[in-house]
Amino acid sequence: MIRAAVAGASGYAGGEILRLLLAHPHIEIGAVTAGGNAGELLGAVHPHLTPLRERRLADTTVDVLSGHDVVFLALPHGHSAALAAQLGDDVVVIDCGADFRLESADAWSEFYDTSHAGTWPYGMPELLTGSGPVAKQRAALGRARRIAVPGCYPTAVSLALAPGLAAGALTPDDVVVVAASGTSGAGKGLKPHLLGSEVMGSMSPYGVGGVHRHTPEIEQNLSRAAGATVTVSFTPTLAPMARGILATCTARLAPGTEAASVRAAWEQAYADEAFVHLLPEGQWPRTADVLGSNNVHVQLAVDERAGRVVVVAAVDNLTKGTAGAAVQCANLALGLEETTGLPVAGVAP
Amino acid sequence: MIRAAVAGASGYAGGEILRLLLAHPHIEIGAVTAGGNAGELLGAVHPHLTPLRERRLADTTVDVLSGHDVVFLALPHGHSAALAAQLGDDVVVIDCGADFRLESADAWSEFYDTSHAGTWPYGMPELLTGSGPVAKQRAALGRARRIAVPGCYPTAVSLALAPGLAAGALTPDDVVVVAASGTSGAGKGLKPHLLGSEVMGSMSPYGVGGVHRHTPEIEQNLSRAAGATVTVSFTPTLAPMARGILATCTARLAPGTEAASVRAAWEQAYADEAFVHLLPEGQWPRTADVLGSNNVHVQLAVDERAGRVVVVAAVDNLTKGTAGAAVQCANLALGLEETTGLPVAGVAP
Amino acid sequence: MIRAAVAGASGYAGGEILRLLLAHPHIEIGAVTAGGNAGELLGAVHPHLTPLRERRLADTTVDVLSGHDVVFLALPHGHSAALAAQLGDDVVVIDCGADFRLESADAWSEFYDTSHAGTWPYGMPELLTGSGPVAKQRAALGRARRIAVPGCYPTAVSLALAPGLAAGALTPDDVVVVAASGTSGAGKGLKPHLLGSEVMGSMSPYGVGGVHRHTPEIEQNLSRAAGATVTVSFTPTLAPMARGILATCTARLAPGTEAASVRAAWEQAYADEAFVHLLPEGQWPRTADVLGSNNVHVQLAVDERAGRVVVVAAVDNLTKGTAGAAVQCANLALGLEETTGLPVAGVAP
Amino acid sequence: MIRAAVAGASGYAGGEILRLLLAHPHIEIGAVTAGGNAGELLGAVHPHLTPLRERRLADTTVDVLSGHDVVFLALPHGHSAALAAQLGDDVVVIDCGADFRLESADAWSEFYDTSHAGTWPYGMPELLTGSGPVAKQRAALGRARRIAVPGCYPTAVSLALAPGLAAGALTPDDVVVVAASGTSGAGKGLKPHLLGSEVMGSMSPYGVGGVHRHTPEIEQNLSRAAGATVTVSFTPTLAPMARGILATCTARLAPGTEAASVRAAWEQAYADEAFVHLLPEGQWPRTADVLGSNNVHVQLAVDERAGRVVVVAAVDNLTKGTAGAAVQCANLALGLEETTGLPVAGVAP
Repeated sequence: MIRAAVAGASGYAGGEILRLLLAHPHIEIGAVTAGGNAGELLGAVHPHLTPLRERRLADTTVDVLSGHDVVFLALPHGHSAALAAQLGDDVVVIDCGADFRLESADAWSEFYDTSHAGTWPYGMPELLTGSGPVAKQRAALGRARRIAVPGCYPTAVSLALAPGLAAGALTPDDVVVVAASGTSGAGKGLKPHLLGSEVMGSMSPYGVGGVHRHTPEIEQNLSRAAGATVTVSFTPTLAPMARGILATCTARLAPGTEAASVRAAWEQAYADEAFVHLLPEGQWPRTADVLGSNNVHVQLAVDERAGRVVVVAAVDNLTKGTAGAAVQCANLALGLEETTGLPVAGVAP
Repeated sequence: MIRAAVAGASGYAGGEILRLLLAHPHIEIGAVTAGGNAGELLGAVHPHLTPLRERRLADTTVDVLSGHDVVFLALPHGHSAALAAQLGDDVVVIDCGADFRLESADAWSEFYDTSHAGTWPYGMPELLTGSGPVAKQRAALGRARRIAVPGCYPTAVSLALAPGLAAGALTPDDVVVVAASGTSGAGKGLKPHLLGSEVMGSMSPYGVGGVHRHTPEIEQNLSRAAGATVTVSFTPTLAPMARGILATCTARLAPGTEAASVRAAWEQAYADEAFVHLLPEGQWPRTADVLGSNNVHVQLAVDERAGRVVVVAAVDNLTKGTAGAAVQCANLALGLEETTGLPVAGVAP
Repeated sequence: MIRAAVAGASGYAGGEILRLLLAHPHIEIGAVTAGGNAGELLGAVHPHLTPLRERRLADTTVDVLSGHDVVFLALPHGHSAALAAQLGDDVVVIDCGADFRLESADAWSEFYDTSHAGTWPYGMPELLTGSGPVAKQRAALGRARRIAVPGCYPTAVSLALAPGLAAGALTPDDVVVVAASGTSGAGKGLKPHLLGSEVMGSMSPYGVGGVHRHTPEIEQNLSRAAGATVTVSFTPTLAPMARGILATCTARLAPGTEAASVRAAWEQAYADEAFVHLLPEGQWPRTADVLGSNNVHVQLAVDERAGRVVVVAAVDNLTKGTAGAAVQCANLALGLEETTGLPVAGVAP
Repeated sequence: MIRAAVAGASGYAGGEILRLLLAHPHIEIGAVTAGGNAGELLGAVHPHLTPLRERRLADTTVDVLSGHDVVFLALPHGHSAALAAQLGDDVVVIDCGADFRLESADAWSEFYDTSHAGTWPYGMPELLTGSGPVAKQRAALGRARRIAVPGCYPTAVSLALAPGLAAGALTPDDVVVVAASGTSGAGKGLKPHLLGSEVMGSMSPYGVGGVHRHTPEIEQNLSRAAGATVTVSFTPTLAPMARGILATCTARLAPGTEAASVRAAWEQAYADEAFVHLLPEGQWPRTADVLGSNNVHVQLAVDERAGRVVVVAAVDNLTKGTAGAAVQCANLALGLEETTGLPVAGVAP
């Protein structure tokens, strides 16, 4: 058995990694660590992880994390670099934080206000990388020792739009995205606007006007797919549900592109993917359908009157949007079958 | 007391009209009628309307509706024209259906597949009509005998964008709107995708690609405000809540417009409005804050990187989005103070 | 106009009092005060109270609260006595806290761990007091200067069971109550289990085994109605909704009581009440039907096999369960019509 | 591989069986059948079952169902007997309907209004059967060819109370249960009260007064555990969530039983169970913690003042409450490890 440690196991992302590892046939759970919750039983922090309820959270230290084959980091931004540097080059380190996602140090500084830690291979295997009709990010991940897991919104948006941009069916210069997320995407921090009384029955936007930190990550992914600079107007909204992202993504139909031919780009891109699915024409994604699974459901329509293509993607922000991608990347890094242990059906209704 | 009848009282819109009329100091409730529910007690159909629980739903006929000062029609599309024609020119008829909203018979036919019944004064008092810096639709409603109540999405979207378009701060040619609605907007029809088990915990889009019937109504309103043809990419989504619309509306910042000056258009447009409120800078609308009220909460941000202005509006689809607008219009038509009897605070949390 | 101050206006109960006062024809809102939120605008704390958004929260001091005709206290337990003592005997003080509800100093000490502040007239006008077939608590409230507003659970449970106990149709010795409450009943405190991510999609009990502080208040009310000591097994549960209490209350059918005759006790008790309604046979209360209203919906069934009567009551914990009762009591104390300004229809769906 | 057919695959129970079988290492999915949905693709009916989306629903006939090792029936009540009779005695038939659960033909007739089809081994392995300190229903299920899967409420209630009744710590004569269920328990039928607009934000009871069909099943289970006739006052309520049951169960503390000794009965009963867990003292079940899993979380408290023990159990009505139990029973019948393929962690938050 491969032995895994999970740092930051008390948060929602850490909890979801543990849930997935419990069902993984080749990975066993070693150390589980936390910050403020260190010393507590997992049963008190994550009562849904019944088989782990007697496991105690340790402090997040190099000592505790050492001696595992793979270490999952689910830490607040800025905490991964120092730890990873001490973990040994042979250990697979999967970072769920943002620290190593961006290539541009300037973009990092603008959005995160600290100095850039560096760039690791970006953990979105299905992302078209634009260097050929079927070139995908997967190529960079096999046997990698360090992988940066994508953000949840960038996962939905990038997989929604990349095929059309890579195929030249969409123009790169005026992409507009409005996405709704469940509250678990905001984490477990005690903030008044995240109280159940405030979120139930309510929709609200946040980070409006291009200031959300996932904006440069989305633009980086889409620009690579397009082979050109993509600018995105991105508005996230908070929805009254615990999990799920629904990203409604629009881009202008490229001049000269026939509406009827647009769909082929997505069909071709995802025909062989295990987790990314273009739904049958006319069927639209629902976040409930991917809940708890590693799936991405995608659908699109061409609005010829408005001159735009609308692509909608649904993911579970905690599964494919974070922990599922982390396990998927670990599988690739460890030389396992990419889909090993990952849920392929949503929990609905 | 002014005497009102409500036709289609068994639906959600009809029920909300009755809820508002119960609190109206100058209107008393006369006949309440229905189609399939005729003969039932209101207490069985709308148990929340406690004081009306002994009232029995009559058939929707001209005879029953005659003899009232004002008749509210909350009927399926296509049923208003024949009834209204027989109600007498002196009776105020407020139609919550779509039949008389559109000016273009072609647009009607394209989206509704029937022949156009005509056009009534459009019941959105606060809408800028573009013929001057403060010209508003209110001018067409005082003492009107026939009024077409706007659709719920058009209410949120039009009030969100009209000030910027009228002021020339936004370009009219590439408006993109993504809106989330509570399930009551879809009515009380028994459709599988509206079951609680299906909608709770789930977000999903529908009517994607410019096919939703509110599209031409939005374009009509915005084109009038802009004094130019506005094209909209409109994507509605269904959110896990019973009430509320959150419309995220974006348009390109007009060339030569200074970002800092944009906000003034909204401040000027709504400074004196009782129901439409530009929130203080940095505070964003939440649908829960307008629940059950006739308010519209609006906020905007300029995204200079993306070259777009993002305007977000929240309304209660059943109140300001339908029944509240209907009562507000009735007040104007009847010569009452426009705000009479309308709730000015939301029911939160 | 009568002038009212609201102390503790930043919480959910305080906010609801303000919402109701905004619609009250004879009361105007004077000082609004808070603890930690003092200095903030109401618009930041309660964005749903649109007309009050420019009002600033003052500190909760005697000076600020003085000079009003009525003062509503919505403070944490233990803070009312000192304030009330300094407010002048002619001022109407309506306390939404628990401090003055209990008659037994022992019960207070057992459940609240502090010394007993005293007992004020108990603000549940519709409660049968057992001293005669129609004797109700209302008699103690007219022109009272100090009133203790009941707790939310005791409101639902007491109004559900009192008629049967007073009529001798139910035995007092083995009452079992299980109640579900929306999260606003737990207040605005930042506790992990109240996060939206934790409560949405989940039901859970708390305070199990007779330890919830509303237990002695329920027993006090029911014992008075029964004219005998009533013991209650009370289990509250947290439901995934912001507002509402559904109390399922059972007691044993008194020996010799005919099942068919049981209902009459409730019919007689509530026939003339404006807010407490026994629903038509076969129709069961739903919390949504009373949302935002001052109504209590009640229904019952006799289970002859089990030898128990099941009575279910629905209230909005913030309205009739707190703020609505407070305004109702203020109306009585001020000599106004008891129902003045109070919503008689729920906001549904 | 063992080959399974699922009849009634278009409903929620059938869909959940398929979800679980997708993760089962030794069972492959053969025929999937339906009534009104026959001919449709599974992708249209259960879009969350992504890997099965191309599978087409066949008619529910003996021909289609024949030739499988195990047949799961998820049919409306009354449809199982005729089918099962033709399926061959060597085929394992797991019936999720009520038809074969009750031993008493009289109870069946009283609650279901049809004639009794018979009694199959009852599929609740962990149920104490009272014939000894550790005698459980599991003994009747190994290698059985016909198994009746328990109802969802009876699962939660029986596992909650059986240990205390079997140990004599609870008196059997006045059990009171109030349970909250998610809406999926009511199935996919198109009924107005199940619309999302009606259930979100609302709690309501149904089947009050001993008329719910699960009442005799609960009494049968508890009577067997107690070795005495148990009478239950059972009130189910509908909660605003898609999945989950929270059962609050109370019984009187048996005379002479010491409160401190009560807990031992549950500890002993479930110490070795894989799916039924007595939580650590002070931690209470939440339905979200068992969502999508086959777990039952149980906790109890003794209320000495009221003379009652309160036991709360949480299950997912579709998993352990139906489909999980079905697969667990199939495992036993097929000679597999009982826990094979069943999720042991909930999907939270």
